[in-house]
Amino acid sequence: MHVISTEHLDDHLTEHRFTLDGVPGVLWSPRTTGGPTPLVLLGHPGDLARMHPRLLGRARSCVADGYTAATLELPGAGGRPRLPAVDAARAELRRAVRAGEPVPDAVVERLVTPLVEASVPEWRTLLDALPGHDPVAWSGGITAIGVRMALEPRIAAALLFAGSRLPRATLDEARRVTVPLLMLLQWDDEGNDRRQALDLFDALGSDALGRTEKTLHANTGGHTGVPAFEGGAAARFLARHLRCRGRSG
Amino acid sequence: MHVISTEHLDDHLTEHRFTLDGVPGVLWSPRTTGGPTPLVLLGHPGDLARMHPRLLGRARSCVADGYTAATLELPGAGGRPRLPAVDAARAELRRAVRAGEPVPDAVVERLVTPLVEASVPEWRTLLDALPGHDPVAWSGGITAIGVRMALEPRIAAALLFAGSRLPRATLDEARRVTVPLLMLLQWDDEGNDRRQALDLFDALGSDALGRTEKTLHANTGGHTGVPAFEGGAAARFLARHLRCRGRSG
Repeated sequence: MHVISTEHLDDHLTEHRFTLDGVPGVLWSPRTTGGPTPLVLLGHPGDLARMHPRLLGRARSCVADGYTAATLELPGAGGRPRLPAVDAARAELRRAVRAGEPVPDAVVERLVTPLVEASVPEWRTLLDALPGHDPVAWSGGITAIGVRMALEPRIAAALLFAGSRLPRATLDEARRVTVPLLMLLQWDDEGNDRRQALDLFDALGSDALGRTEKTLHANTGGHTGVPAFEGGAAARFLARHLRCRGRSG
Repeated sequence: MHVISTEHLDDHLTEHRFTLDGVPGVLWSPRTTGGPTPLVLLGHPGDLARMHPRLLGRARSCVADGYTAATLELPGAGGRPRLPAVDAARAELRRAVRAGEPVPDAVVERLVTPLVEASVPEWRTLLDALPGHDPVAWSGGITAIGVRMALEPRIAAALLFAGSRLPRATLDEARRVTVPLLMLLQWDDEGNDRRQALDLFDALGSDALGRTEKTLHANTGGHTGVPAFEGGAAARFLARHLRCRGRSG
């Protein structure tokens, strides 16, 4: 991990910009800590520069609760080399959604699957580069990446945002997920498929033992309309599973 | 309202048993209060004696947050005159569920509609008998009764438990509901119809203006498996809409 800059944003929060094998990322840590804290990996739809304000808000909440937070640029996004096939599939998907047409599975496959395949190994490398942080939670980002990450043995809990289309393989992977889960769904999300999101929640295996938490929070409104109070719900979910006695514990 | 008994359960909570036009009920109030508090009407599936421990738990949370809580016996339940047609329909429904057969709409109509028609006027009479308590919220009980009560002008917010079958009319009534809503759904509730519960959430009109809160919390598990943390979520929902600065505010 090559640290590019370290900035103390206030008395409590330090932001480190880094690259890891050439992938840009950001780490947010408490200014004072008694050793490694729990870690929250912050997923996002791509373009760290554009997403930074929202990511910083989520990171502030994590650090206030005693965790470290980290994120990586998405493959093909921001300043990273474009992925022309992915860009073409994204354009096809947006055109179909705008036209109110069904989105062909093949288009979702060409858009999402390469992002899952390319990004998950990079997140694993990030975990390798941040030893000692335990437990680790996944939070948000592209749904199919969150499901794949929820299968990573170092992930203790996952907060999934059902805000993007799913390749067929994701539903099969979901059955193997056993960590505690909170899934957020925006009921009127124009870019999402509600039926598919509910099928995903149903498929997730986290209730297989009848002991693990598996919760869906559905709110009225569109993709970006997640109510502010869901921030508190997410903090309490993480507090339950990162065994943190922070303000949300 | 004829008060039968008043018992100080602890330093904070007083339980009043009463009858209202012959209908048994229970009122839970703070021992000390500066005038009328917000009021929470506690719905339940019937038989106050059997439900009392769970109702008392919900009432304790309400009173701790600064509200008064009240409930009434359901028509045909507990010591009230039986409703043979309702009992027969309930037996039919249970038989069909046990046999894994679809439950005919006519059976749901014969079971639920008479309970809605008979109980809602009784709840309105209870509101008449408890003047000054404002705002008032509805919490739980038979889903179709909760939807009808959410249309009562004195109800400012409603917590619905999607744990029972719905007459067709309830989906139409739901479109006219405009108060803030939190709906709880037990994803694997054997006595429920998940598709119907999701259709109800979709139909509820509380998002019509795009400003009102309409949230679904679905948890894995059966009818009685609501996770303990949903108690906190319910308290925070009530605190938001009863404008209370209690422990959950």
